Amino acid sequence: MSDLTAERLAAAHQALRSGDRERALEYWHPDVRFQSPGNHPYAGWHDGLDAFMGFIRTWQRLAGGTLRMEQIACLVNPVDGYTIDVNRCTAVRKRTGSDGTSFYEHLQMEGVDLMRWENGRVVEGRGGIFGDGTANFSSFFGPIGPNGLRSDD
Amino acid sequence: MSDLTAERLAAAHQALRSGDRERALEYWHPDVRFQSPGNHPYAGWHDGLDAFMGFIRTWQRLAGGTLRMEQIACLVNPVDGYTIDVNRCTAVRKRTGSDGTSFYEHLQMEGVDLMRWENGRVVEGRGGIFGDGTANFSSFFGPIGPNGLRSDD
Amino acid sequence: MSDLTAERLAAAHQALRSGDRERALEYWHPDVRFQSPGNHPYAGWHDGLDAFMGFIRTWQRLAGGTLRMEQIACLVNPVDGYTIDVNRCTAVRKRTGSDGTSFYEHLQMEGVDLMRWENGRVVEGRGGIFGDGTANFSSFFGPIGPNGLRSDD
Amino acid sequence: MSDLTAERLAAAHQALRSGDRERALEYWHPDVRFQSPGNHPYAGWHDGLDAFMGFIRTWQRLAGGTLRMEQIACLVNPVDGYTIDVNRCTAVRKRTGSDGTSFYEHLQMEGVDLMRWENGRVVEGRGGIFGDGTANFSSFFGPIGPNGLRSDD
Repeated sequence: MSDLTAERLAAAHQALRSGDRERALEYWHPDVRFQSPGNHPYAGWHDGLDAFMGFIRTWQRLAGGTLRMEQIACLVNPVDGYTIDVNRCTAVRKRTGSDGTSFYEHLQMEGVDLMRWENGRVVEGRGGIFGDGTANFSSFFGPIGPNGLRSDD
Repeated sequence: MSDLTAERLAAAHQALRSGDRERALEYWHPDVRFQSPGNHPYAGWHDGLDAFMGFIRTWQRLAGGTLRMEQIACLVNPVDGYTIDVNRCTAVRKRTGSDGTSFYEHLQMEGVDLMRWENGRVVEGRGGIFGDGTANFSSFFGPIGPNGLRSDD
Repeated sequence: MSDLTAERLAAAHQALRSGDRERALEYWHPDVRFQSPGNHPYAGWHDGLDAFMGFIRTWQRLAGGTLRMEQIACLVNPVDGYTIDVNRCTAVRKRTGSDGTSFYEHLQMEGVDLMRWENGRVVEGRGGIFGDGTANFSSFFGPIGPNGLRSDD
Repeated sequence: MSDLTAERLAAAHQALRSGDRERALEYWHPDVRFQSPGNHPYAGWHDGLDAFMGFIRTWQRLAGGTLRMEQIACLVNPVDGYTIDVNRCTAVRKRTGSDGTSFYEHLQMEGVDLMRWENGRVVEGRGGIFGDGTANFSSFFGPIGPNGLRSDD
């Protein structure tokens, strides 16, 4: 797997976020599974590329264009077929009747994406979170805002 | 509101759990709202009797007949129109591929149901939880089991 | 226990918050135990009046004069010896290098204090929390601020 | 930093866990800071090697010889000076009056240790956790057991 590089990892992320399934299939196995960290309606293992891309779309929808991922570091182990990128992530979810500044709406966290590759494609991925970011991440994705009102926006 | 008694509160709960909407309407206002505690897919304010009864049905479905509520104490303030019952609650949610013993499946907690009454019917209710029971309650209702697999059973 | 009234409960709280042990002993049994809700360094059962008053002092110290408790409702069951008051609580913990506005510093929650009385004094108490207030409560009492720095102020 | 290898990372961990400060100083800068994930009495940034080693000792003490770390993968970026090892961690904390099987006592999680190196020594480290392991990790380190009793063992 001599072609496993930071560049290929970056291209895999771009393809995934584009929402273009055909393009994503160049880097992600159709049976890829990804574990979203924390405990919230979208947490746990998403089995298959369609489920995984569905999770990404949900995230993009809730963040309404505010999702930012800044890479802090990138590590590649081509021998064993692993990549990890360390990211700082920010997003704002403006819930109905709220201004987007609460702990349930303003996401700011740092974490990793661990990917395992086989034959040039990711077959398994997991998100990990540093510090107390999991609390913020789960609150962001949860159904309730700071006032306890339920919302899907 | 001289008729607000522990007996009427008990009857209100029985009517609610029966799933019979007509019977429930004797004790619960059609616009009643209830706040499920914690942060999980079914947390927050459920607005209206139908939404509230839907939450109760979800709980009964996930517990598959294991839901037990034991009343520890009951307090009534008929002058201001409040009742509180203190309960011990146990339930088991057997997720696919698991045996129902994990923190995500075996619920054991103690808490209160605060109800505000107007003209003989509950218009607002809130669940409160003692100790660290909220962690158990949210894990029970969450989508993931001890292995991180997502399930709706 | 015909003398168990809302007035006596209010007096018990005042005596407790005064920090005057002798005055507190009029309302609180020396072996009283109180369970602080959530999971944080000061959570769980505090056994004995001294431990309980120590918890109250810690809360007052961290809040630096900002602790406010507003009673929403009060329920008394003199026959079985129970009282519950429903409170709205706010407090601000300004940690070093922070402005006191974060989820880890600005506490706003609603909950109950359940007290069991024997012979005119409280022998056991438990705090219960509505909604997702437990997350806020535990973050307030936890050692870390929004930046992950540890502090005891 | 051509000498940054998986072997050097493994040696750094061994030196740290040995509790021998002099030996640890070969791999860890005296001003190293490490962020323990989650929110619990030992969470957040531990500043300086002494504070960091104190956290490790606490973990070893609470686990009473049961702490196991199994490396799943190791990634090294010698150009930028980063290492990450991916670990499966298990530990049992037997609290007074409990059998060590509860969510508050039996730790099982997977995560990463991200280390930043300068001149052959770690200057900053952070623990990150996959899935819902943060809940288990914080419960393990928290003061309360399954019965809500506080303990320091």
